[in-house]
Amino acid sequence: MSENNQQVRLAARPSGTPDPSVWDLTTEPVPTPEQGEFVVQISHISVDPAMRGWMNDVPSYLPPVELGAVMRAGGVGRVIASKHPEFAEGEHVYAAFGVQEFALSDGSGVIKVDPSLAPLPTFLGALGLTGLTAYFGLLDVGKLKEGETVVVSGAAGAVGSIVGQIAKLKGCRAVGIAGGPEKCEWITEELGFDAAIDYKLGDIRGALRQATPDRIDVYFDNVGGEILDAALARLARGARIVLCGGISQYNAQRPSGPSNYLAMIAARATMTGFLVFDFADRYPEAIAELAGWLAQGKLVSREYIVEGGVQAFPDALLKLFEGENTGKLVIACS
Amino acid sequence: MSENNQQVRLAARPSGTPDPSVWDLTTEPVPTPEQGEFVVQISHISVDPAMRGWMNDVPSYLPPVELGAVMRAGGVGRVIASKHPEFAEGEHVYAAFGVQEFALSDGSGVIKVDPSLAPLPTFLGALGLTGLTAYFGLLDVGKLKEGETVVVSGAAGAVGSIVGQIAKLKGCRAVGIAGGPEKCEWITEELGFDAAIDYKLGDIRGALRQATPDRIDVYFDNVGGEILDAALARLARGARIVLCGGISQYNAQRPSGPSNYLAMIAARATMTGFLVFDFADRYPEAIAELAGWLAQGKLVSREYIVEGGVQAFPDALLKLFEGENTGKLVIACS
Repeated sequence: MSENNQQVRLAARPSGTPDPSVWDLTTEPVPTPEQGEFVVQISHISVDPAMRGWMNDVPSYLPPVELGAVMRAGGVGRVIASKHPEFAEGEHVYAAFGVQEFALSDGSGVIKVDPSLAPLPTFLGALGLTGLTAYFGLLDVGKLKEGETVVVSGAAGAVGSIVGQIAKLKGCRAVGIAGGPEKCEWITEELGFDAAIDYKLGDIRGALRQATPDRIDVYFDNVGGEILDAALARLARGARIVLCGGISQYNAQRPSGPSNYLAMIAARATMTGFLVFDFADRYPEAIAELAGWLAQGKLVSREYIVEGGVQAFPDALLKLFEGENTGKLVIACS
Repeated sequence: MSENNQQVRLAARPSGTPDPSVWDLTTEPVPTPEQGEFVVQISHISVDPAMRGWMNDVPSYLPPVELGAVMRAGGVGRVIASKHPEFAEGEHVYAAFGVQEFALSDGSGVIKVDPSLAPLPTFLGALGLTGLTAYFGLLDVGKLKEGETVVVSGAAGAVGSIVGQIAKLKGCRAVGIAGGPEKCEWITEELGFDAAIDYKLGDIRGALRQATPDRIDVYFDNVGGEILDAALARLARGARIVLCGGISQYNAQRPSGPSNYLAMIAARATMTGFLVFDFADRYPEAIAELAGWLAQGKLVSREYIVEGGVQAFPDALLKLFEGENTGKLVIACS
């Protein structure tokens, strides 16, 4: 165990893609808990597209990460020292601990996790906010009904790969849009999607037409851009578009909107933006269902684990925007 | 009464703004009804932004107007000859009679109107599809609640001017976006909007911020483009965007989408496209309420009447896209 706490702090606000100069690597002593506090040694850090938004100095659903602050990130770890009545040494926990090796906590926003249920990184994937985002986005926001056609973009990514699997578990046709033959093969062969569209081959619209003979009832969007436009051109009447993210736009200096949005009129379609936090009171029921599927082997949670600890974070974040990961991108701390 | 039936037919599909060359003016004998038919002399023809979409060879909620066909248009008129058991000479009717002076009908899709209730053009305005679009769009699609803030674009237009008035009648704050001081004065001074924003002055975002201290709960969009983007930047949590039209985009060779659409995530907002036809079984209740407001002087229906009959149609359609009309644009047939 390291004597020091390595941290990644936001040093400057990026314009466009966040290059290494926006980060500061700092080292502090491992904190010591006071009464009512405990210290967590972080084992795995979640790397998410949403992080890019938190780096902008723009008010949003969470305040921007302040310059000089440890970068915000979800993580799991083990309590290594505690003066808190509810968190004992040796327990495993999840929270937004930040991109660092150790975190001091008073317990607010901290959730205990049970490592006998699944490997720790899975609590950042299918049993974490990733899985919950897929679950509530598809079922509640998307109002999925049995027999419908679901199309999801970023289908080999963290949320998308869960979305398609839940669609299948709920008796729907699942079509995934992903980049490259490996990802497409993974989602159809291993995850059970009915069809995959490799957007890198071009002609997304033609491929989508072929893959959705009954058009699209639920389109779950993680990417935006021309893929969103292609989906809008293929909506079934009464379609629901679940607006989860738009990774193709996060680094754009001039983001572009869906030029096909008026197709929503003829389709009587609805597009809804959502945040998983609003479903917090229903996390337990969702986690119970997700954990059941996992235990029965009906749901695959895949984590793309980057070794190297917090120092690997700046590069790992870029990998996400380059679509290098398959499944949930997680940094393992040594 | 003319012995002939003048008609405007679609001669070519426009790209961009429909110039005069896309139209053919034709003349036919006034039709004679067979058994089960009747003939209507059309007195007023509705001119609508949606017409531009019907001219494209693109499948939508209605089939495209065929080349060589009389241009589709709603109209009101009087039955002048009938061999139909349910429609008697002298009765007044509304239907999609087309841009022509006389129409032969078998009664399908024809609604009787009562000229003692309101002047005939009003059945193309507040008591027609225009009023119904505003009514169902705001109340049902927009799920308006008392005390909320409503912003409507195209606020001095046919639908927009009714939307703002209904918002006020339902106890809401109504803010209209319109072009030019006359329109802005009309909606605030005569229609009772709480505030008007003249988009021609620029800084729509700043003006919107000032006019919506509690942000926007319902944004009713008729225009798209930068006005839609400005509204998206000002959404309240849980906002509903009612997608009625996008007149700024209808003639665009390369339509542009709302680049701010990802603001819907943080706002947990919903954007819904709709067509008034889906509410047909509830037209009577809506017309009753609208007619009641009109009779009590609580609702103003203004029609911008263009004289000159069907020959005036090609120019009138352009006026619509130039924003020349205040209220509902109607052609009066001589």
